[in-house]
Amino acid sequence: MTDDNKNKEEASYEIREYHTRSSGIFLKVKNFLHKSKSQYQEIEVIENEYFGKALLLDGLIQTTEKDEYFYHEMLAHPALITHPFPQNILVIGGGDGGLLKEVLPYSIKYACLVEIDREVIEVSQKYFPWLKPCLRDQRTELIFSDGREFIEKTTKKFDIVFIDSSDPVGPSANLHESDFYEKIKKCLSPGGIVVAQVGSPFYKAESIYEKNDFLMKLFKMVCFYVSPVPTYPGGYWCFVFLSDEIKPFDIKRNPPKELKYFNLHIHRAAFSLPNFLRDKLESQDLLD
Amino acid sequence: MTDDNKNKEEASYEIREYHTRSSGIFLKVKNFLHKSKSQYQEIEVIENEYFGKALLLDGLIQTTEKDEYFYHEMLAHPALITHPFPQNILVIGGGDGGLLKEVLPYSIKYACLVEIDREVIEVSQKYFPWLKPCLRDQRTELIFSDGREFIEKTTKKFDIVFIDSSDPVGPSANLHESDFYEKIKKCLSPGGIVVAQVGSPFYKAESIYEKNDFLMKLFKMVCFYVSPVPTYPGGYWCFVFLSDEIKPFDIKRNPPKELKYFNLHIHRAAFSLPNFLRDKLESQDLLD
Repeated sequence: MTDDNKNKEEASYEIREYHTRSSGIFLKVKNFLHKSKSQYQEIEVIENEYFGKALLLDGLIQTTEKDEYFYHEMLAHPALITHPFPQNILVIGGGDGGLLKEVLPYSIKYACLVEIDREVIEVSQKYFPWLKPCLRDQRTELIFSDGREFIEKTTKKFDIVFIDSSDPVGPSANLHESDFYEKIKKCLSPGGIVVAQVGSPFYKAESIYEKNDFLMKLFKMVCFYVSPVPTYPGGYWCFVFLSDEIKPFDIKRNPPKELKYFNLHIHRAAFSLPNFLRDKLESQDLLD
Repeated sequence: MTDDNKNKEEASYEIREYHTRSSGIFLKVKNFLHKSKSQYQEIEVIENEYFGKALLLDGLIQTTEKDEYFYHEMLAHPALITHPFPQNILVIGGGDGGLLKEVLPYSIKYACLVEIDREVIEVSQKYFPWLKPCLRDQRTELIFSDGREFIEKTTKKFDIVFIDSSDPVGPSANLHESDFYEKIKKCLSPGGIVVAQVGSPFYKAESIYEKNDFLMKLFKMVCFYVSPVPTYPGGYWCFVFLSDEIKPFDIKRNPPKELKYFNLHIHRAAFSLPNFLRDKLESQDLLD
């Protein structure tokens, strides 16, 4: 084989995700495990030598076996250790089950997973070992629905709502808008908490400032927090903790012991924001 | 042009850094600005649409205009705000000048930059605008020497020593060993601080545990801390703060106001480590 052909073949066995028009991450593909186009998006599962199995939606890395814990622990535990009595939990999106596996070790009563795309669940069940036990758990209910439609129709009240959406393009676009958060607020029980992933603080700071502006009109506590996530753009991700009553530093219980990333030190540290974010988010002064 | 040729041409106009054998980062190259082989290493400067100019040594990204502040602010300021009277500063490595520009705004007396590779300074002066004013500053002395040799011979005492090395391969290899830190300790003034970059906590945790083991024998305070750095492997980096007298949370002064990343909240937060590191670093309990 000529070097040119070898390079071409090697290049074809990798996935590339652009983080800007001119940069990004590549993962060599040991095995292509799945590729399909559902009603909503393109779904792929590949296997990489280092990261293990990785789920991609519309070409964007959602989760990998090797580093999923950064994102899922940081999305789950800040609300679960601060709510005084978390019983009814709603997860919007998160069809790979990574968040649900962090939620179920707490003594909750009911976890409702609302995923728009049945195929994401089917594919994840096949490839990500943590999902099946979560779905078999008697406290779990799985609902296939658009998150916004579910929120509009449900009469249930939830203590914590997690928005584990993909980026504001494709089927998740409407989960990033002001009126969606208004509707979520209506199905929160008193003293409830909403936590959402809000994207890359490095590449998409503007969209975080915009969210801050409309969230400040809806919730008394609007507290952004950050975490490393190695396979996400810039390796650095932002979340928001929303409540009218609960302060993120008023800790009610310890997290599970066997976590790989999260602990109470990390919890407090995560709410410390860099100047480039903090200067635009006066909401953050609440925490000083 | 056929699609195949187009792909080949596009691929040739990018640099790729492998973070594992099967994954890494790519930056498209808008301009190749410099490529040479010095006595010590391959030196490249490229321009990327998003990250601006980037310096690579032996193919590894050292610094980019767009995200250099994460690394340089986090290396510089923790020691500079905690030392009671920082007057004489030593920087080993750091020929791109990014660290020096963070040091000089403090009212120090003398900053000594010891860089092994004259060509790194020459190339950086041409392409990174911050370096020339740093070198023109009357408090700066520039010495071309192997860091270890300099440390062995110097009779000066320093209040803070920064080890701004590249990775433990190539010309920096001997800056990662126990006896180098022993020698550095001998040229610290009483109550001095050493700060070093110690690599990726995600990909190279083992090398951090090893450093911890020998550093615990040399210094009373061995405090690791972490920060995002978008273009470094995993977007997540680790540093160590070493001293026999100074505690990192005993803050003596504010950092400069115009920083983009670092502030006093970030300072405290950075020393909070994830479980996967903390469980192996009993040294960190000093901070509780």
